[in-house]
Amino acid sequence: MRLISYQYNGQDGYGALVGDRVVDLHAVFGAQAPDLKAFIAAGLASQAAAHVEAARATLPLSEVTLLPVIPNPGKIFCIGLNYGEHIRETGKTETEKPVIFLRVADSQLAHGEDIVRPQASERLDYEGEIAIVIGKGGRHISEADSWSHIAGYSCYNDGSVRDWQLHTSQWAPGKNFWKTGAFGPWMVTADEIAPDQKMTLVTRLNGQEMQRATTDMMVHSIPAQIAYISTFIPLEPGDVIVTGTPGGVGNKRTPPVFMKPGDVCEIEVDAIGVLRNGIRDE
Amino acid sequence: MRLISYQYNGQDGYGALVGDRVVDLHAVFGAQAPDLKAFIAAGLASQAAAHVEAARATLPLSEVTLLPVIPNPGKIFCIGLNYGEHIRETGKTETEKPVIFLRVADSQLAHGEDIVRPQASERLDYEGEIAIVIGKGGRHISEADSWSHIAGYSCYNDGSVRDWQLHTSQWAPGKNFWKTGAFGPWMVTADEIAPDQKMTLVTRLNGQEMQRATTDMMVHSIPAQIAYISTFIPLEPGDVIVTGTPGGVGNKRTPPVFMKPGDVCEIEVDAIGVLRNGIRDE
Repeated sequence: MRLISYQYNGQDGYGALVGDRVVDLHAVFGAQAPDLKAFIAAGLASQAAAHVEAARATLPLSEVTLLPVIPNPGKIFCIGLNYGEHIRETGKTETEKPVIFLRVADSQLAHGEDIVRPQASERLDYEGEIAIVIGKGGRHISEADSWSHIAGYSCYNDGSVRDWQLHTSQWAPGKNFWKTGAFGPWMVTADEIAPDQKMTLVTRLNGQEMQRATTDMMVHSIPAQIAYISTFIPLEPGDVIVTGTPGGVGNKRTPPVFMKPGDVCEIEVDAIGVLRNGIRDE
Repeated sequence: MRLISYQYNGQDGYGALVGDRVVDLHAVFGAQAPDLKAFIAAGLASQAAAHVEAARATLPLSEVTLLPVIPNPGKIFCIGLNYGEHIRETGKTETEKPVIFLRVADSQLAHGEDIVRPQASERLDYEGEIAIVIGKGGRHISEADSWSHIAGYSCYNDGSVRDWQLHTSQWAPGKNFWKTGAFGPWMVTADEIAPDQKMTLVTRLNGQEMQRATTDMMVHSIPAQIAYISTFIPLEPGDVIVTGTPGGVGNKRTPPVFMKPGDVCEIEVDAIGVLRNGIRDE
């Protein structure tokens, strides 16, 4: 199932996508699950399937305004330096533990929205990534159990303002500019992607391929990420882990490539779909 | 006014403290402001004062269970390396821009609760700090305007698991262990603390003074912090900025001092009050 969060007639909603039609699941579950995070927390995906099958009243996708897949995650963990080529291009070395930094929900945007190049910098870079959404919460989750804690997968563009990322040793400012974390277009539920299934991740800027990798190239696997993070804090339904970017970022090219107004950046994951965003100035 | 968040009879609430009695402000404002963050966002502090004055029905403070002052901030920014003595003891140098890292709301705990020493490490350290709570949101807030965006002040213990903080270059794991960010006991509203008023911050472990500084010793002032952060992302009501810790952390003492079960850690700010937490094992 492909699940989306959206606005329709000024109201926030969420639903399942069937072709180019949307089944409004908020209408089905009401106060039991007011948003997609609550729907995931309540474990309603299997119940929803029958509703989606039988649905007569649907909305055209073209009439809803997409939101970030989970607009309100409690926590967004990002994994840094998790593909060998990216580690080498940044002049760093592999770390024994995953490099983790955080994003705030307010920094996110949806598929189809413009990523915003801020007044403060022209060094706005893409980072194509695969995001996982936690379904079942837990602490001290073992690598073996980790797959059963995943609700689904989406594409993520971890848009980064490079000079602000490097103002000090801590990357948070450059990783949390307003409307730089693109998350979408939808979440593919985990029943459609096998544990450890090899996925291919590609980033295109104005149609030109900039990054390409497969998930078996990750330094710290998805189970290793879940095990590590859940050692320090419980994972909760709707939490997001953005699993790292491959080599080929704009900042490390010669000459460097930055995103500018009018550009279009696409993150494609074969098992998920294409996240597409234009760029505009603040 | 001293504002608190609490649980009473299994329900979340918030209110104003008058001596050792609590005026339930959720009962006054109902759905208009279901929590302290919403109360701040709606700008209800001046209206509340009259209710607090006239209140007949109050709860004894001893019968409520305190929550972190803002249990659900949208964003928690922490400022690193912001006092000279702390910069020197860590062997670092002053940075031109503030060092910023993030905490997640799930890592917080209340006054009176135990800070949890995790299974994963015995290197649990205190960091006494002053927290500011944003009242009026905004982007690109100038230093001159910054004071008008502050709703109030509280004490914060930015409990840090030192080995996990240094697993990689990014500090997020060591700064986000479950129940390590103590926030309380209350928020003193900004009308009671003058802009740029010099406050004294003291940390005590089992009664022994470990840290002491005054706010004029900050490298990056509160206005500079607000201006810098609001350049990259809008500040929203209820957002929290934890403004940095003085010299004297346990990790840099000879021999090092770490918090262990049975210890009591106090963060005192003269203009605010005392945040007190025991320590227990996970």
